[in-house]
Amino acid sequence: MIYADNAATTKMSEAAINTMVSVANANWGNPSSLYTHGQAAKEILEKAREDIAGVIGAAPREILFTSGGSEADNQALRSAAALGRKKGKMHIISTAFEHHAILHTLEALKKEGFEVTLLDVHENGIVIPEEVDAAIRDDTCLVSVMYANNEIGTIQPIREIGNICRKKNVLFHVDAVQAVGHIPVNVVDDNIDLLSASAHKFHGPKGVGFLYTKKGIALSNLIEGGAQERGKRAGTENVPGIAAMAAALKEADEKMKENALHLTKMRDRLIKGLGEIPHSALNGDAHQRLPGNVNYCFEGIEGESLLLLLDDKGICASSGSACTSGSLDPSHVLLAIGRVHDVAHGSLRLSIGEDINESDVDYIIQSVKDVVNYLRGFSPVWRDLMSGKTEFIL
Amino acid sequence: MIYADNAATTKMSEAAINTMVSVANANWGNPSSLYTHGQAAKEILEKAREDIAGVIGAAPREILFTSGGSEADNQALRSAAALGRKKGKMHIISTAFEHHAILHTLEALKKEGFEVTLLDVHENGIVIPEEVDAAIRDDTCLVSVMYANNEIGTIQPIREIGNICRKKNVLFHVDAVQAVGHIPVNVVDDNIDLLSASAHKFHGPKGVGFLYTKKGIALSNLIEGGAQERGKRAGTENVPGIAAMAAALKEADEKMKENALHLTKMRDRLIKGLGEIPHSALNGDAHQRLPGNVNYCFEGIEGESLLLLLDDKGICASSGSACTSGSLDPSHVLLAIGRVHDVAHGSLRLSIGEDINESDVDYIIQSVKDVVNYLRGFSPVWRDLMSGKTEFIL
Repeated sequence: MIYADNAATTKMSEAAINTMVSVANANWGNPSSLYTHGQAAKEILEKAREDIAGVIGAAPREILFTSGGSEADNQALRSAAALGRKKGKMHIISTAFEHHAILHTLEALKKEGFEVTLLDVHENGIVIPEEVDAAIRDDTCLVSVMYANNEIGTIQPIREIGNICRKKNVLFHVDAVQAVGHIPVNVVDDNIDLLSASAHKFHGPKGVGFLYTKKGIALSNLIEGGAQERGKRAGTENVPGIAAMAAALKEADEKMKENALHLTKMRDRLIKGLGEIPHSALNGDAHQRLPGNVNYCFEGIEGESLLLLLDDKGICASSGSACTSGSLDPSHVLLAIGRVHDVAHGSLRLSIGEDINESDVDYIIQSVKDVVNYLRGFSPVWRDLMSGKTEFIL
Repeated sequence: MIYADNAATTKMSEAAINTMVSVANANWGNPSSLYTHGQAAKEILEKAREDIAGVIGAAPREILFTSGGSEADNQALRSAAALGRKKGKMHIISTAFEHHAILHTLEALKKEGFEVTLLDVHENGIVIPEEVDAAIRDDTCLVSVMYANNEIGTIQPIREIGNICRKKNVLFHVDAVQAVGHIPVNVVDDNIDLLSASAHKFHGPKGVGFLYTKKGIALSNLIEGGAQERGKRAGTENVPGIAAMAAALKEADEKMKENALHLTKMRDRLIKGLGEIPHSALNGDAHQRLPGNVNYCFEGIEGESLLLLLDDKGICASSGSACTSGSLDPSHVLLAIGRVHDVAHGSLRLSIGEDINESDVDYIIQSVKDVVNYLRGFSPVWRDLMSGKTEFIL
């Protein structure tokens, strides 16, 4: 199996699994308990908080543990909205190609009276900071822009946008689920007020994530109950999972440069190889993208068939976000960068992992070429294109 | 170490840990992914759903996976409240000694316009069904009563209350976090509409739980985003954790009778032994309580010192809920059953586990006797009681 869907989820690292098991076996006490066995769990929890904070340039008390990226996104947006409402600021700025954890929360906030501006991400899948600046109004309470897009991998000018928000005194949230552990993220240098991350995207466990909140910003609770996480997130802390997340993140951080160098090389080889397929196009900027992300559109192809035939060849890939794979609608991300419906349907996302090598890459290229060719062989859309009945777009 | 705080959290069973590791190693794909590796994870997820549903008499599609009991409680209450609001029914009935995941959510709902009636739980810590009946009004949208109390372990007449709610067409939610895996729970026989449970209370992993929702009841989202869990709970499913929860629950269910028999014997031995301490009193009904729960008040004692000295003797115990252990307020549960502040401060909860034996129990009894005696030796409150300056309550 060649696993090329690391944007959907990653395999837990050995260090992460070992940490999870060792904490579950030895330090399984409730960290809120007074006795030694509970306090030992508390120490592990706080050490994990320190380690994670250290990686992103935060203070430990600025890290809140959640059940994952979606929960962190929801809580970040709802907290900023609640603060905005108190000041009569009911306008939020985000982008058209955010993850649904953002877009659906914004939909809910709209029903509660907020006004939302979704910025254009242009053909290259990158937000223009000046357009954020121009969109900020007196009643803007929040700007939320993802660090790197989950489908096309384009990296946003977070530092510049953060700088604008800081100057205009508007809260800045960053969904960094695809970035943390993969590219350098520093909440201080990047002027970030709120940041969401998810462990299973960087070889940590599923069901664990965190929300960074700059000191002084009051969070609203998404989950009410016990006094855990300084009263801001109820529920017994998942200490084994949290410790495993910290182990995974430390490892990812240490190997980041080396991994990124290798992945970028493999990614560019993939981009070049797949570019040889006629009437294909890379989605998103060719350079300002995650080291492991390749996303192509192939004209005259239906994405689902492509994936199933690649699966037969032992290649795990996706057409876009796993979170919406049940849906028949084309990707909102591809529509946002201007792909028309038909073309967006024929998309392929390859998000490669650190253990991939050149021969894997070449096998993927050849397999995609074969499958695209095969599928076009009996595609009525392709026949119409070839006969000149309809016109090629790509 | 004698661990007697299983109500706070339990050690993961070997089966649960093994399941978690094996799924994390072999079936770590994203269950929303189309390829074989993703679908294998999906199968494990759905098998876990079936297994869990089977244990509580539900249909698989009635089980929604959450990050734990608190999230399940929050979502259950918010869903019922949203349904109530639609019909103009803004009255909720609960009890004075619910877990804070319930009470704090009810506080939030009050701020949003709901009216809340908290029923008396009486001296024995048991709700009277007739009082539920009498409290139900035309505008009541929800009754929420916990299956067994987390501090004093008293088991509520859930079936009778469920029957009343069913007859009066009012939704019935049960926080069964302390009950599931310990005593028989069947959502059909018990007339339950919504039920919350948490894996780490029955030797499953932390950070995983579930919400049962009777078919036909529409849930509101607490976490918006991807289309996981039929669109009702966003976030990549924690498949290893969920599979481990199912393994733990099946095991707990299979051993339930045997465990309960043993625990009840050990519990009653503890209750008898600790009853020999002068001016002590058992909190909650002596019989209608969880097999593993003992909760005592000792006059003239400060609970925290008691716990720390027991810890020195290798005994893990608590004064009440771990979720509020940071708080200096006396337990709201003990106040609800009529204990006065001073007495409530001197409480001890022992929640024993299946591996406890008679000699452990006798060691606990002797240790508590010694520590209570020691602490009373220099307690000014005890001196005043002994000198007749103040009067004994217990």
